[in-house]
Amino acid sequence: MTAPAAENTDNTDDTAATFINVFPVRPRDQHRLVELLMAAHENYIRHRPGYLSTSIHRGVDGYQVVDYTRWRRREDFEAMVRDPAAVPHFAPIGELTKGEQKAYDVVFSHEKGGVARRAL
Amino acid sequence: MTAPAAENTDNTDDTAATFINVFPVRPRDQHRLVELLMAAHENYIRHRPGYLSTSIHRGVDGYQVVDYTRWRRREDFEAMVRDPAAVPHFAPIGELTKGEQKAYDVVFSHEKGGVARRAL
Repeated sequence: MTAPAAENTDNTDDTAATFINVFPVRPRDQHRLVELLMAAHENYIRHRPGYLSTSIHRGVDGYQVVDYTRWRRREDFEAMVRDPAAVPHFAPIGELTKGEQKAYDVVFSHEKGGVARRAL
Repeated sequence: MTAPAAENTDNTDDTAATFINVFPVRPRDQHRLVELLMAAHENYIRHRPGYLSTSIHRGVDGYQVVDYTRWRRREDFEAMVRDPAAVPHFAPIGELTKGEQKAYDVVFSHEKGGVARRAL
């Protein structure tokens, strides 16, 4: 029996830990917040052990930014956040807004034309 | 000059509209909510024009469910929600909880080992 081919790297690793951070923001600060998140990603987050992926979302109404990151294990994310090396990267974000960060498991995913994945 | 190869179908369509729905929920209702969202997906949402992808996330602390869907255009999502045919699929979800649904643009995405995409 051969292993099934990976259709999509993003969806096949069902054990990945997902963190979603919803930041409330004023429309005039939204662009700045996106820039700070991209800088933290580039200079710190992407280099940390267990990092898998990031996407940053700009609320169309101007009032939110959502950061969506995936990690090999939940502990990898927690170690990244707790490391004192994180402070200079996250401090300017904390001055702008306080996000609500939560850990999630992806229990279902489907792409048009593909097969649905359930991990309940 | 040749067009760059698509690395990942999910990320290459930069014009896609993303909708993130954060549902507060009691831990005892979380599993039921996930089942209702999966049923709405299977029986209605995935068949609608412009649908691209869905992922459903279960909060590790038991208190949230996040539904993340992508559509060709924002109008496709809005037409899907407004159609009277949606009512029987969404009514049982509305009885359980009221989500906060918002429209987003993906302004940045990166996967480990890949090239970052910016759409600011």
